[in-house]
Amino acid sequence: MRNYKLFVLDLDGTMYRGEEKIAEAPVFIKELNKRGQDYVFLTNNATKTPQDVVNHLAKFDILTQPEKVYTTSVAAARFLTKMKKSPTVYVVGEAALANSLREAGCQLVSEEKDLGRCDFVVMGLDRQITYDKLAKAALAVRAGATFISTNADKALPTERGLLPGNGSLTAVVRTATGIEPTYIGKPEPFMLEMIMEEKGLAQEDILMIGDNYETDILAGIRAGVDTAIVFTGFTTQGDLEHVHEQPTYQWESLLDAFC
Amino acid sequence: MRNYKLFVLDLDGTMYRGEEKIAEAPVFIKELNKRGQDYVFLTNNATKTPQDVVNHLAKFDILTQPEKVYTTSVAAARFLTKMKKSPTVYVVGEAALANSLREAGCQLVSEEKDLGRCDFVVMGLDRQITYDKLAKAALAVRAGATFISTNADKALPTERGLLPGNGSLTAVVRTATGIEPTYIGKPEPFMLEMIMEEKGLAQEDILMIGDNYETDILAGIRAGVDTAIVFTGFTTQGDLEHVHEQPTYQWESLLDAFC
Repeated sequence: MRNYKLFVLDLDGTMYRGEEKIAEAPVFIKELNKRGQDYVFLTNNATKTPQDVVNHLAKFDILTQPEKVYTTSVAAARFLTKMKKSPTVYVVGEAALANSLREAGCQLVSEEKDLGRCDFVVMGLDRQITYDKLAKAALAVRAGATFISTNADKALPTERGLLPGNGSLTAVVRTATGIEPTYIGKPEPFMLEMIMEEKGLAQEDILMIGDNYETDILAGIRAGVDTAIVFTGFTTQGDLEHVHEQPTYQWESLLDAFC
Repeated sequence: MRNYKLFVLDLDGTMYRGEEKIAEAPVFIKELNKRGQDYVFLTNNATKTPQDVVNHLAKFDILTQPEKVYTTSVAAARFLTKMKKSPTVYVVGEAALANSLREAGCQLVSEEKDLGRCDFVVMGLDRQITYDKLAKAALAVRAGATFISTNADKALPTERGLLPGNGSLTAVVRTATGIEPTYIGKPEPFMLEMIMEEKGLAQEDILMIGDNYETDILAGIRAGVDTAIVFTGFTTQGDLEHVHEQPTYQWESLLDAFC
């Protein structure tokens, strides 16, 4: 395997499965630390802060730092403030998203009279969704706000079964307005490009590692970096027979990285 | 004009515009009564009972009876009970929809443990929507319930602007499950076919009258009945230049029916 400067790691299905441990994951991280191999985590989840992710990983004996965690909340905030300084934003989402936007200097608006002067509408998964939130998002998008969605994930694996993901909630405003949002998360290449720019790395320096061909691997392919699929989550070896462009590597577990 | 046995009339944009009167509408209904011309009202709205519609029409001096009003709530209830006797249903919608289903003999379920044995999931506009309602609908559809939606209307004209319609809320469960619902309302022909069957009428006996080409007129065309578009609401004369199949009649106002 090439000598990559940075491993970019997906979380759910790669480092753990929901609340279930993946045995090789903590061994893998310890080995990276020992070898001095740099890595970061990349998640489409917009409802957790980097510190929340660090705390969740600790439950599986994976010890890391918030600086190593890239969520779509953090990435959305960077995306907006790169396009405009101190933008006005109507946000549909949970606390982590609103906090990221506020910390990055966005001015969040919530009153009906302010919807007409919004620069952006940002939608992230919101399990406290209401009709009024969806209505306000639709009104602001129709009034000209740029429509951003943290991620297009259709369904969310939970212990109850597959529940509606942010891509499904985003479909309300997309359908009501006829306007397609810009998605921040995987499979869009934006987050990988952001990491490369921030760390001054080139495409050949990066390996994107994840369990989901449709999000992790496609994001890597679109960003022009090498990819490794690990069969501990969503995509099976059989699924890969039907895809056009293959990942660079196929791994049974993360420890195949050292083979 | 041919001697139709039944006029089927759309409501919003045809008999009134939101809270605004259309001056010719009460004159038109009085003239139909005088001539002994039978008529019914047909609406995609699933949040109002027939009696609610009668009360709303009375504000515009249009006096009628609940028996003359066909809502998608009433039609959905007929559709379900025609397919199965006393079906179990998980419903997302407002009181009028749940009441129609209950009155028709449906057994409404709401607990998580019952979602796996639902015959149907029915979605109608619900301005008290929650993530949990959407999650339960998605779980029941994934578990095999037949997915029904009262109507595919994307946006709802209100005094606040165009807000998400039932078609937009339905998109959450459609996107999350990958399963397309069966829609009851216009432009589907189902409600017109139901009226013909109930009243023992043939296609040539019916004239469908409405302001919206995409819903009213297409429903008529698909049901094989004659159609009249009235330019007091959504569709303009200019819009008709781009449509493949023209309505049978084009009216400036409802009173053109008597010309």
